[in-house]
Amino acid sequence: MKKQQICILGSTGSIGTQALDVISQHGDLYEVYCLTANNSVEKLSEQAHQFKPAAVVIANEEKYKELQDLLADEPDIKIYAGKSALEQIVEAEPIDMVLAAMVGFSGFLPTINAIKAHKKICLANKETLVVAGELICNLAKENHVPILPVDSEHSAIFQSIVGDADNEIDKILLTCSGGPFRLFSDEQLNTVTAADALKHPTWNMGAKITIDSASLMNKGFEVMEAKWLFGVPAERIQVLIHPQSVVHSAVQFVDGAVKAQLGVPDMRLPIQYAFSFPKRLPLNGERLDLFKQQKLEFFEPDIKKFKCLALAYDAINKGGNMPCILNAANEIANSAFRKEQCSFKGMATIIEQTMAKATFDKNPNLDVYLQTDKEARAIASEIIKNINE
Amino acid sequence: MKKQQICILGSTGSIGTQALDVISQHGDLYEVYCLTANNSVEKLSEQAHQFKPAAVVIANEEKYKELQDLLADEPDIKIYAGKSALEQIVEAEPIDMVLAAMVGFSGFLPTINAIKAHKKICLANKETLVVAGELICNLAKENHVPILPVDSEHSAIFQSIVGDADNEIDKILLTCSGGPFRLFSDEQLNTVTAADALKHPTWNMGAKITIDSASLMNKGFEVMEAKWLFGVPAERIQVLIHPQSVVHSAVQFVDGAVKAQLGVPDMRLPIQYAFSFPKRLPLNGERLDLFKQQKLEFFEPDIKKFKCLALAYDAINKGGNMPCILNAANEIANSAFRKEQCSFKGMATIIEQTMAKATFDKNPNLDVYLQTDKEARAIASEIIKNINE
Repeated sequence: MKKQQICILGSTGSIGTQALDVISQHGDLYEVYCLTANNSVEKLSEQAHQFKPAAVVIANEEKYKELQDLLADEPDIKIYAGKSALEQIVEAEPIDMVLAAMVGFSGFLPTINAIKAHKKICLANKETLVVAGELICNLAKENHVPILPVDSEHSAIFQSIVGDADNEIDKILLTCSGGPFRLFSDEQLNTVTAADALKHPTWNMGAKITIDSASLMNKGFEVMEAKWLFGVPAERIQVLIHPQSVVHSAVQFVDGAVKAQLGVPDMRLPIQYAFSFPKRLPLNGERLDLFKQQKLEFFEPDIKKFKCLALAYDAINKGGNMPCILNAANEIANSAFRKEQCSFKGMATIIEQTMAKATFDKNPNLDVYLQTDKEARAIASEIIKNINE
Repeated sequence: MKKQQICILGSTGSIGTQALDVISQHGDLYEVYCLTANNSVEKLSEQAHQFKPAAVVIANEEKYKELQDLLADEPDIKIYAGKSALEQIVEAEPIDMVLAAMVGFSGFLPTINAIKAHKKICLANKETLVVAGELICNLAKENHVPILPVDSEHSAIFQSIVGDADNEIDKILLTCSGGPFRLFSDEQLNTVTAADALKHPTWNMGAKITIDSASLMNKGFEVMEAKWLFGVPAERIQVLIHPQSVVHSAVQFVDGAVKAQLGVPDMRLPIQYAFSFPKRLPLNGERLDLFKQQKLEFFEPDIKKFKCLALAYDAINKGGNMPCILNAANEIANSAFRKEQCSFKGMATIIEQTMAKATFDKNPNLDVYLQTDKEARAIASEIIKNINE
């Protein structure tokens, strides 16, 4: 059988490296066609030496020379640099599927191009659906391209729906660990730092998403993602705080049956399932042992304390380009929090103010999205500048 | 669309009456062709008046006249009596599916006949698979007849496998409420009565199965049932005590993903799903609210305290007609316990002794099963007689 050729957008990140682990476990089925990174030339070069892709792309053009030097001993690997190279590489004819594992809005245009080039999409870059879910889903439908979720929650929902695709969904139960600050008082939240959030993640994730998880903005994004992927309106997507992170999410059908996917937190499972669907392949790793679990608990989220989740629902209800504004403001606020330029609670304030100031468009097209993203980032940055003056 | 014609074997029992509730919610899809009962003429007549089946069968021939009188005002309903009538009625041409909801071994021959007559089988009578799982499953395969599980656990497993049927199962996680005596000491178990067991069942079930649930014999039967229905060996079927009865059972696949079906305890769901599979229909009833659940817990079963479960695994491992011996001895012991002719723990002793005394056959055929059932019942009855002398 011909090996599936995979392009990994964002191969040096947490999802990217775990995807390469999956691929190395199934070298008989998958081959890396292309690896891309934003800035991490050394890690990219290391991966390229190991997986021998046909091409590598470094988004930051200033790193091109460095990458070239590092890969001087691999003359068969084509080396590209720059954002447009990133947008073009996904169209390469031999590619069968694209794993979109870049962080934030940067994954947007390459994903659109990959869909247009009829590549199967394994989507880890949730911001793409947050920003422009309707546009992306319509494009995928037009091009008969499957979008397979790589988020653990959405993979769980997808796995729960398999074989029940023709049956009506009553409700999606989207679980959420609650983050490291779940039990903190409102007072305590005034003084938490990025370091506090990055200390104890349940999942092995990147820094940006770990902060988004602590603020519950990540869960807000996931509500949007679920809405677009599964065609279920936000009011029928219920967030459940589930500190044990064993139930990865669930679906309730019209007959009252709830189907769930459970497991240990291991992102390689949803990555591999997106690659191999509808088949399941063996995966080396820890197994769930329910006897070792003290108990499984479920609580309602506190949206007064975690205002980002409420803002996300607001953005969904407004529709149009509001989720795009929310996402851009969040990327800036999240980054500012990590640089100690704003407080934990300050993130929600920045986002809320940006949502109030940015130009609203009820029916945005691609150009509007790009413009909105720029404008919202500028507004959020300005707010942060004012805080720090 | 033509309505599906349903034959309910054991319509006056707990499953039968709940099945009629399902049918009455979907009168546009289903029609009752035949209702049968063992002894309950009055209830059978009531049901016949409401659902107007083409035929009714009362197994106990002595009740024929009484039933005839009760249905004198329904000249269109054919009335039959006796075990052979029961075995024949399932073959009636208009019948599309047979719900086997009789208690114990009595469901065995009618189910075989229904399979031979190519009727879809909705199987609530687990003893049929316990006694002769291999024979039944081979017969169903030969006749291209689907067997749809109605037990809540097996329905949950079946629902978890839908869409994953081609993927390898690593392990079945069979949940079990633990019964009313879960937390009782060995000492306390010496004095429990049938009334104690019948007081607080989680599920709305008949008396026989409620006792089997208290002794965990029911779970042993379910291990056998799962083995035959899903082709998974007993050593890969794990029993989990789960007192909240929310997770109805689960399946672990080769990639480590666990899929489960959850819900409130409502037997109408698995009944309806067996009828409507692969479609799901709306079902009026309570919905699962995970926020109201304090927690979900999972414990290993104590097979030293609940010896019937250990005996069931012994019978599986011995194979041949040993499960048939186990089942026959259990039917007698269960009945004796309900009549206060033996103690709770005495049931396991009676079954163990019967298993030691009855003639073992490694490769039984249908005649051997029938002979084994008789012999084991006689041995168990003799043991009970000796206890009470």
